[in-house]
Amino acid sequence: MKNIKLTIEYDGTNYVGWQRQDNGLSVQQVVEEAIEKITGERVRVNGSGRTDSGAHALGQTANFHTKTSIPTIRLPAALNSVLPDDIAVKDARCMPLDFHARFSCKAKEYMYQVYNGKTRPAVMRRYCYHVPKDLDGDAMVKALKLLEGTHDFSCFKAAGSSVTNCVRQIYRADLSKKEDMLIFTFKGSGFLYNMVRIMMGTVLEIGMGKRPVENIPKLLESKDRSLAGPTVPAKGLFLVKVYY
Amino acid sequence: MKNIKLTIEYDGTNYVGWQRQDNGLSVQQVVEEAIEKITGERVRVNGSGRTDSGAHALGQTANFHTKTSIPTIRLPAALNSVLPDDIAVKDARCMPLDFHARFSCKAKEYMYQVYNGKTRPAVMRRYCYHVPKDLDGDAMVKALKLLEGTHDFSCFKAAGSSVTNCVRQIYRADLSKKEDMLIFTFKGSGFLYNMVRIMMGTVLEIGMGKRPVENIPKLLESKDRSLAGPTVPAKGLFLVKVYY
Repeated sequence: MKNIKLTIEYDGTNYVGWQRQDNGLSVQQVVEEAIEKITGERVRVNGSGRTDSGAHALGQTANFHTKTSIPTIRLPAALNSVLPDDIAVKDARCMPLDFHARFSCKAKEYMYQVYNGKTRPAVMRRYCYHVPKDLDGDAMVKALKLLEGTHDFSCFKAAGSSVTNCVRQIYRADLSKKEDMLIFTFKGSGFLYNMVRIMMGTVLEIGMGKRPVENIPKLLESKDRSLAGPTVPAKGLFLVKVYY
Repeated sequence: MKNIKLTIEYDGTNYVGWQRQDNGLSVQQVVEEAIEKITGERVRVNGSGRTDSGAHALGQTANFHTKTSIPTIRLPAALNSVLPDDIAVKDARCMPLDFHARFSCKAKEYMYQVYNGKTRPAVMRRYCYHVPKDLDGDAMVKALKLLEGTHDFSCFKAAGSSVTNCVRQIYRADLSKKEDMLIFTFKGSGFLYNMVRIMMGTVLEIGMGKRPVENIPKLLESKDRSLAGPTVPAKGLFLVKVYY
């Protein structure tokens, strides 16, 4: 028995997210079906975590147990030959049997792309959120720095999430710019449901001058989701890397 | 009568190219129909030049004559409200009546994206050509530098093109890299039919060690298309900017 870790890139536009759902096609289901086509085995693939419907991944990870005789190094090419063109396996490697993509995870990195041009984007339309208003980059960077560190992030957790311990550590929250595209990156010990998208909605309000930078510490202290900004669209969100 | 210059971005995946064709939907037709919806006028839009089926544009330009009373500054938003999401007008401005997007053009800039990762890309699959083989960046940069300057580019012209004067000037041919994506840029006085795609096919052969760098001057001198490399896929090609 082997325990294989896959690194998977996907364009989430046409999926209900990573995790199997009743209401549509998930990336997990497509990957499990591809593994079955290649190995003949029906397996359960454990992702590092859910990704939202319409969100993307450059480096989602997942593991599964298999008795296949296909050499691990050949798995990416074999799987890519049967996967649809919006999902690609970037890497496969053999791990200790107790490795679990979700429970062994040490940190994650996300990216959120905001297109700040005056008119809507065409080429990158699936991969960014269009904000035509002027944004104050300095204020947003200050806000990002206030989000770094260990905090109770309850205020940035989607209503309805059942998680009770909301303390997480954000190691790094940065902003870079390439022409009209603003690229926000967040690396942290873990992220609550919709946390990046709600933090982004809040940071963008700060960028628009609708909310002062100084609001961030009070907001964290309040633990009240209704005081934070809106949940921005999933299409700007990328799971970049999962650390073990 | 006003003469309006549009700057247009498009994802060319679903079009037969810029120019109207009998065999499918062109960007030109869609833009002309959008103008008719907004102004009520049937106009002919002059593009700066054709773009290939499946190729993209970040800054295609086009002009048209109109009597519309819509203020020029409002045209991008008005047109974008009726255009499909893979075409966007970035800018509109009023030009002298004798301005013509094609004949007034002084220079053009193209970009070609090569994804050099080992496995196929998922997110950027529509916007790059996947070359999994190792590529020698130094050799490719040397080749690009040999393409700069004023030359007869006949050897890089698609067979069947009727253009007779093939002397063009390439002001700049560069290569940059962002992770696994290689970004080639070409700025020149003008480009022959398929010229960027055939130059790219030739430069990539040099990168793979299939052709020596020193071959470039001989190739230019030969004026023989059959001695150059293959025409690489249109999906990696972007018309970035048209200069006037």
